[in-house]
Amino acid sequence: MPRSRSTDAVQLVADARAGDRAATARLLSLVEQGGDAAAAVDAVVFPESGSATTVGLTGSPGAGKSTLVSALVGALRAADRRVAVLAIDPSSPFSGGAILGDRVRMGDHALDNGVFIRSMATRGHLGGLAVATPQAARVLDAVGYDPVLIETVGVGQVEVEVAGEADVTVVVVNPGWGDSVQANKAGLMEIADVFAINKADRAGVGETRRDLEQMLELSTPEGEAPGWHPPIVATVATTGEGVEELWAAVERALAHLAVTGALERRRHRRLGAELQRVVAARLAERIDALSAGSAYDEARAAVRRLAPWVAADRLVDSG
Amino acid sequence: MPRSRSTDAVQLVADARAGDRAATARLLSLVEQGGDAAAAVDAVVFPESGSATTVGLTGSPGAGKSTLVSALVGALRAADRRVAVLAIDPSSPFSGGAILGDRVRMGDHALDNGVFIRSMATRGHLGGLAVATPQAARVLDAVGYDPVLIETVGVGQVEVEVAGEADVTVVVVNPGWGDSVQANKAGLMEIADVFAINKADRAGVGETRRDLEQMLELSTPEGEAPGWHPPIVATVATTGEGVEELWAAVERALAHLAVTGALERRRHRRLGAELQRVVAARLAERIDALSAGSAYDEARAAVRRLAPWVAADRLVDSG
Repeated sequence: MPRSRSTDAVQLVADARAGDRAATARLLSLVEQGGDAAAAVDAVVFPESGSATTVGLTGSPGAGKSTLVSALVGALRAADRRVAVLAIDPSSPFSGGAILGDRVRMGDHALDNGVFIRSMATRGHLGGLAVATPQAARVLDAVGYDPVLIETVGVGQVEVEVAGEADVTVVVVNPGWGDSVQANKAGLMEIADVFAINKADRAGVGETRRDLEQMLELSTPEGEAPGWHPPIVATVATTGEGVEELWAAVERALAHLAVTGALERRRHRRLGAELQRVVAARLAERIDALSAGSAYDEARAAVRRLAPWVAADRLVDSG
Repeated sequence: MPRSRSTDAVQLVADARAGDRAATARLLSLVEQGGDAAAAVDAVVFPESGSATTVGLTGSPGAGKSTLVSALVGALRAADRRVAVLAIDPSSPFSGGAILGDRVRMGDHALDNGVFIRSMATRGHLGGLAVATPQAARVLDAVGYDPVLIETVGVGQVEVEVAGEADVTVVVVNPGWGDSVQANKAGLMEIADVFAINKADRAGVGETRRDLEQMLELSTPEGEAPGWHPPIVATVATTGEGVEELWAAVERALAHLAVTGALERRRHRRLGAELQRVVAARLAERIDALSAGSAYDEARAAVRRLAPWVAADRLVDSG
């Protein structure tokens, strides 16, 4: 049991709550690191979390998600909410260290202490973003940000999975999107609680709305949010048009989910899925450690004398 | 430590050595079963193995491998060798139980007590054929069969991998093969110690031989068997033509590998690779067991109170 680490986490959480942004950044770095570092943080953070709302935003690259997130942050700040943004980029070789990039990207909010922005990337740790993201959201929740916006850069499987693991998920499309995201349309329809048709100053908004409505009718009726019909909100992120309506739709979705008990069920299901991912990540770490350590070299040398199964079991039991 | 199981394995090995074919079949079933059953067998069998030669045979479906293997068995029986055949079929839903199929397939040898034939399939156990096959070969070695022929049905990645994990590997092609197995040619060239051009009564043998020679010149020069130039033997399995020459080529390859120390290096490398696969299989079993057991249900229930990382670690440590 890494006592010093857990004491560190307690101190870091206290500092982060008192407004020390470096402490928040450090907690997120520990989460990204995975393994015992992440476990020590979660042990401290989990009991302090659960009050913030998480909102996933996903959609094709170029749909204007970053601009829309920036506009949402502006609207939320105007309502005096402390907002955090996790920008998830599975393909990026950069990790949370990309502060400069985040500052440039979210220039309007860079000097605002009520906003915390973090880019997450895998840094190659086992389990990856699907393991780190919910834990990072809990950190931001525990240190006082609410809501936590989780923005993903694409519509690949990982992005859709990560974005769908939020309390409410917003799928961002553009007029005429129909042809551009054939690949993962079904996955997007499944996770959407709210649709934003962004860049709605372009032609084809009505057609896109009818297209979405038709797909909603065809898709599986109830699912996890019985009685909820995903609203479709037209936005122009660059001018702020529709952004308050979008947030109002998110809050309506949240209220519906809370009243019907669907929010609690969704959160419970998410924790179960997270448990499985963390178990797999922990055992994967063990495989990795076993293949790298000196015990492995010993087993490797012993395998001329020992049955591979006997050597493997000694190794696994020692790990 | 499953003492009773290991006692069982000791008894089964003794019975199998005394000529009890059902005991051999039972040992192979335990190996296919994986997990603790396989581990108990290996602990008994491994120290008794190492004297038999394993020969892998692979090539495209339809190349006549089964007929060639049957002909090789005939030639080896004529020289009074006790021969075992492992027929590896990753795609087959059947397991070792397919004795009738084996009898039909190897009809000439079905009643010969000096021949043991077994079809292996995955039966879905974790780690699969790549884990089970070398262990099954050790069982056959330990109970007195030598050589053990390992025949795979195709040229997919698993088949090439399994066939290549033998002391000597024979790649079976046909005249005019050039166009039919483009996909995995490089993989086949890499593992081949000996080539058989089977169905050599058809046209195109010379062309195929030149084709193979050219590819051998182009492929990486030394590799695991320095100084060995894979011979190319023309066979007609249905008539037995070339079959003794093929076995002579296998024995020359073996002798070369033994004299140069390459055989020992190859076996040591194989054991190392097997160790890694068994470690992965054992940990995969653990993930599986953890996700199915009551401890998992408890952790799943506790995850409302416990951080997923804390619940996961309790579970992993309990497993």
